[in-house]
Amino acid sequence: MSSRETNARQIAAEAMARLERWRGGGARLAPADSVALRAEEAAALIDHTQLKPDAGAESIRRLCSEAKLYGFASVCVHSGWVPLCKEQLDGAPVKVGSVTGFALGANLTDVKRYEAEQAISAGAEEIDMVIAIGRLKDGDYAYVLDDIATVVEAAHAQAVKVKTIIETCLLTDVEKAVACALAKAAGADFVKTSTGFNGAGATAEDVALMRAIVGPDIGVKAAGGVRTLDDLRRMVAAGATRIGASAGVQIMQDLAGESATSAPKSGASGEKAGEAY
Amino acid sequence: MSSRETNARQIAAEAMARLERWRGGGARLAPADSVALRAEEAAALIDHTQLKPDAGAESIRRLCSEAKLYGFASVCVHSGWVPLCKEQLDGAPVKVGSVTGFALGANLTDVKRYEAEQAISAGAEEIDMVIAIGRLKDGDYAYVLDDIATVVEAAHAQAVKVKTIIETCLLTDVEKAVACALAKAAGADFVKTSTGFNGAGATAEDVALMRAIVGPDIGVKAAGGVRTLDDLRRMVAAGATRIGASAGVQIMQDLAGESATSAPKSGASGEKAGEAY
Repeated sequence: MSSRETNARQIAAEAMARLERWRGGGARLAPADSVALRAEEAAALIDHTQLKPDAGAESIRRLCSEAKLYGFASVCVHSGWVPLCKEQLDGAPVKVGSVTGFALGANLTDVKRYEAEQAISAGAEEIDMVIAIGRLKDGDYAYVLDDIATVVEAAHAQAVKVKTIIETCLLTDVEKAVACALAKAAGADFVKTSTGFNGAGATAEDVALMRAIVGPDIGVKAAGGVRTLDDLRRMVAAGATRIGASAGVQIMQDLAGESATSAPKSGASGEKAGEAY
Repeated sequence: MSSRETNARQIAAEAMARLERWRGGGARLAPADSVALRAEEAAALIDHTQLKPDAGAESIRRLCSEAKLYGFASVCVHSGWVPLCKEQLDGAPVKVGSVTGFALGANLTDVKRYEAEQAISAGAEEIDMVIAIGRLKDGDYAYVLDDIATVVEAAHAQAVKVKTIIETCLLTDVEKAVACALAKAAGADFVKTSTGFNGAGATAEDVALMRAIVGPDIGVKAAGGVRTLDDLRRMVAAGATRIGASAGVQIMQDLAGESATSAPKSGASGEKAGEAY
């Protein structure tokens, strides 16, 4: 076994032990857990996302103008739309984010690196990459580690952050823990739950697990199915520091309505949980 | 308007006129249309496909051994699995096929080109690419034409054929016709119905439309939802010259069972049509 393989197996073993300790410690997520957020705090968490295959220029322009209006953290688009976003957001405090290996993750590592570099050259300031899911499930941890590290190295060389999509809906809890630990070891800046294209999206339970594995030093992004203000609050309460959503405008309107009426926010959140997750 | 744009618009206009003539000519597909096929003829049409994001090495090895056993035209896998397929199929008369811009198609053109080239370097002998669907819907035909032509040029430089996935389930009939004409003009070797990841797959009606637009000189590949021998026969009757399927083994077993019993094949095919399409 090579030292790369030994290293990757060691990281995986530590992640499994950490998962066991977290479970043994009775770390659970109270379903009602939520946090108060002001509008600008919520907006600053949101990657305003348009990744549909049939989205056209008009929807990308609208995404950018909404991101400017609400002060979202970034827009998140396919690499082919980065130049248009760069043009639309020029000078605004909204980052351009893009994706690589999206949404299936089984590309050659060098292809993921190249797409990240090309997106960055075109103006991308953050990169969301999909891991090699099949290799993870095979236990080929050295491959997964190298795949992530290659993209991270290319992006960090240009001072660009990387979010690593582990695609929770296709993984066991042990696989989620190992994927998070490999991403952190590879230098990723965030672990991210989901693409939104391969089944279910983020759950607060998965966010809590991911936060328990990576600790406080890197980000956790909840994405896929975050459609309401209550969803967002539960994700943040569980440990998310970034939210990927195509429903950012709706979330901000929920927040504005709540502020205007000063209505208590209990009650309704429970009803929406089933739909949101 | 640039000459590139004028050229692309001219191609689109001719495609729309051709679609109208085809419809006006009463060209319809009889639902019962089907063709007789011997086992080796059926096998030679099939791209044996495994593109699931969580597929691991074992399922790729099985794909290759099944492809050798039945004599399928090719295996179709993500670029990250091309080296393994090349190793597994070494010397066998089964091609290694791979994909680029898959499954959402909105990558930078240069990224699609790079993935095609890297897959070819790793051993891929056919490339299935997804078009820029949003640009097509925007009417940005020059972009779509250039996107396809760039990949075709890179692949043809290495004597590798390109299949252009238009993703019929997201398109109107006019958009399907324009996409096919642009692909043919760009030098693509096949037009292909579907990725199988963005909604419905191939229908015999779409295959007939695509064949009517591209004429007899290039291939039409039906993919997505082709699960039975009857599905395959209907696609071929409608004009398909290649079939993408993950159910190739089942289709070949259907055919073997039919040959063994010499049972007439009427009746059952009608019942399966609704499910298959």
